[in-house]
Amino acid sequence: MTMMKFSVTILGSNSAIPAPGRNPTAQVVNIHDRLFLVDCAEGTQLQMRRFKVHALRINHVFISHLHGDHFFGLIGLISTYNLLERRTPLHIYAPQALEEVLHLQLGVAGTQLVYTLYFHPVDPSLHRVIFEDEVVTVETFPVVHRIPTCGFLFRERDRPRNIRKDFLDKEHPSFDAIRQIKAGDDYTNPSGKLYLNEAITFTRHEPAAYAYCTDTAYHEPLADYVKGADLLYHEATFMDSEAGTAEAKYHATAMQAATIALKAGVKRLILGHFSSRYDDLQPLLDEARSIFPESYIAMDGDIFKIR
Amino acid sequence: MTMMKFSVTILGSNSAIPAPGRNPTAQVVNIHDRLFLVDCAEGTQLQMRRFKVHALRINHVFISHLHGDHFFGLIGLISTYNLLERRTPLHIYAPQALEEVLHLQLGVAGTQLVYTLYFHPVDPSLHRVIFEDEVVTVETFPVVHRIPTCGFLFRERDRPRNIRKDFLDKEHPSFDAIRQIKAGDDYTNPSGKLYLNEAITFTRHEPAAYAYCTDTAYHEPLADYVKGADLLYHEATFMDSEAGTAEAKYHATAMQAATIALKAGVKRLILGHFSSRYDDLQPLLDEARSIFPESYIAMDGDIFKIR
Repeated sequence: MTMMKFSVTILGSNSAIPAPGRNPTAQVVNIHDRLFLVDCAEGTQLQMRRFKVHALRINHVFISHLHGDHFFGLIGLISTYNLLERRTPLHIYAPQALEEVLHLQLGVAGTQLVYTLYFHPVDPSLHRVIFEDEVVTVETFPVVHRIPTCGFLFRERDRPRNIRKDFLDKEHPSFDAIRQIKAGDDYTNPSGKLYLNEAITFTRHEPAAYAYCTDTAYHEPLADYVKGADLLYHEATFMDSEAGTAEAKYHATAMQAATIALKAGVKRLILGHFSSRYDDLQPLLDEARSIFPESYIAMDGDIFKIR
Repeated sequence: MTMMKFSVTILGSNSAIPAPGRNPTAQVVNIHDRLFLVDCAEGTQLQMRRFKVHALRINHVFISHLHGDHFFGLIGLISTYNLLERRTPLHIYAPQALEEVLHLQLGVAGTQLVYTLYFHPVDPSLHRVIFEDEVVTVETFPVVHRIPTCGFLFRERDRPRNIRKDFLDKEHPSFDAIRQIKAGDDYTNPSGKLYLNEAITFTRHEPAAYAYCTDTAYHEPLADYVKGADLLYHEATFMDSEAGTAEAKYHATAMQAATIALKAGVKRLILGHFSSRYDDLQPLLDEARSIFPESYIAMDGDIFKIR
């Protein structure tokens, strides 16, 4: 059995103004070797080079909202893919207005893409599945910011269940029956005996989930959208002493991020999107850990492993 | 007398695909403490931070053409200026189509600039002065690329001449007469004696000039536009062994850059805009120096001083 990966690589941990060593927002989510790019600030392609992310393996890009520190690097990445003669289609999930921005920039440069760019408009106000394949689903959910913004939830799909060996040895079910049991069906043997699915199967692990919430004000209903996630990235632009500034700018504090993590019962919390005013991030971490001990600071280049 | 600066700081020396340590094109020209930004690839604001360029002192930006590796960093810089609450107006000189690109991006982000952005459309096909103040003029001239592109010539203006002390001691001219002599007039004394201006004045130095030619194919008439410049930046994307590729892509080779430098009689040549295929740039330098010894390689962070 191959090892199933599920990890998040931080390419940019800062808010809009870059700070030394802290680029604005971007990250790569690796789920079973599928690479998903989440937001794409200016300089993201350079960060990929620095942190050895194989850019050409990214086929799907998710943009949370159209503030520049979340998408100004996308046109550069699209252009570099073209110069590298990418062949695989690239799928972009973002608010509709981005499509015109990208096309206008390609147009003024006289660029004809040699690969196909699929633009999937996302309505950030909706809670819905916007992507699924055989191993993962990606949901949007609305967060609260100055312009329409969504969070993303990356969730492994239920995998086929494994069948218990003692049952197989006793009943010798047909191939068709095995397929149905793995898909979750109960089994009735030729003499009419019923076996409930949970009695004859097991899973190696429960599906894991990663939730991404930035940029957003403190908003209690977010806890429901991200409930039980294995890992939550929640913005923590400010310390709680700046809660007024945070509220006015529709951003959150480290304390508020930890409060959402606590209410949602997630396993671990990553704090990110820090204001450039903070050279030392330890106080933000201390603040979050005072109520949610499993809090961590996002630093450019960090890899958070879920599996 | 304050020292008059004239220098060029390389913020990006590479062609479109970033190479390790080599960002795409941008540079800052400092003329008597006026800072001019020339082209602005993705990551330019980060390069400014790295190389201690005081970004807020830049009031004028010149964009040679609308390939992304020459302007994708501009919207990020404009946005960061806004977050830093810049007050001084910013002037952008660029092909007309860029104005819509910038406004569209500010529009989708819901950004209201707190400073004034003046957009000055440039027709890259013309040879003309597009900027002048009391100490410098900036000219465009057409170069030859896949899309309309111009070079820039930064030239110090003639400064008022200094008057020789022996003349002053002898003739004691009036303040008005002194002003006219400094501006270049001859002088006739009350008894009708004529002094030619060059006999009674001197300059500390001749006006210096810096010429910028990228991106461009080899094009002999460029030598006329940049004739006698103290410093010439000319793209050298390829080695001469790749002259066919260079021609097909409307780029130049190191040999061709040196040829323009030689024909133009410039004092020094900077080679730049290197293809990412070259890890080692020494062969490009050797090639240029074989016919123009005063050739230099542009490296990110390099400062070339004219004064």
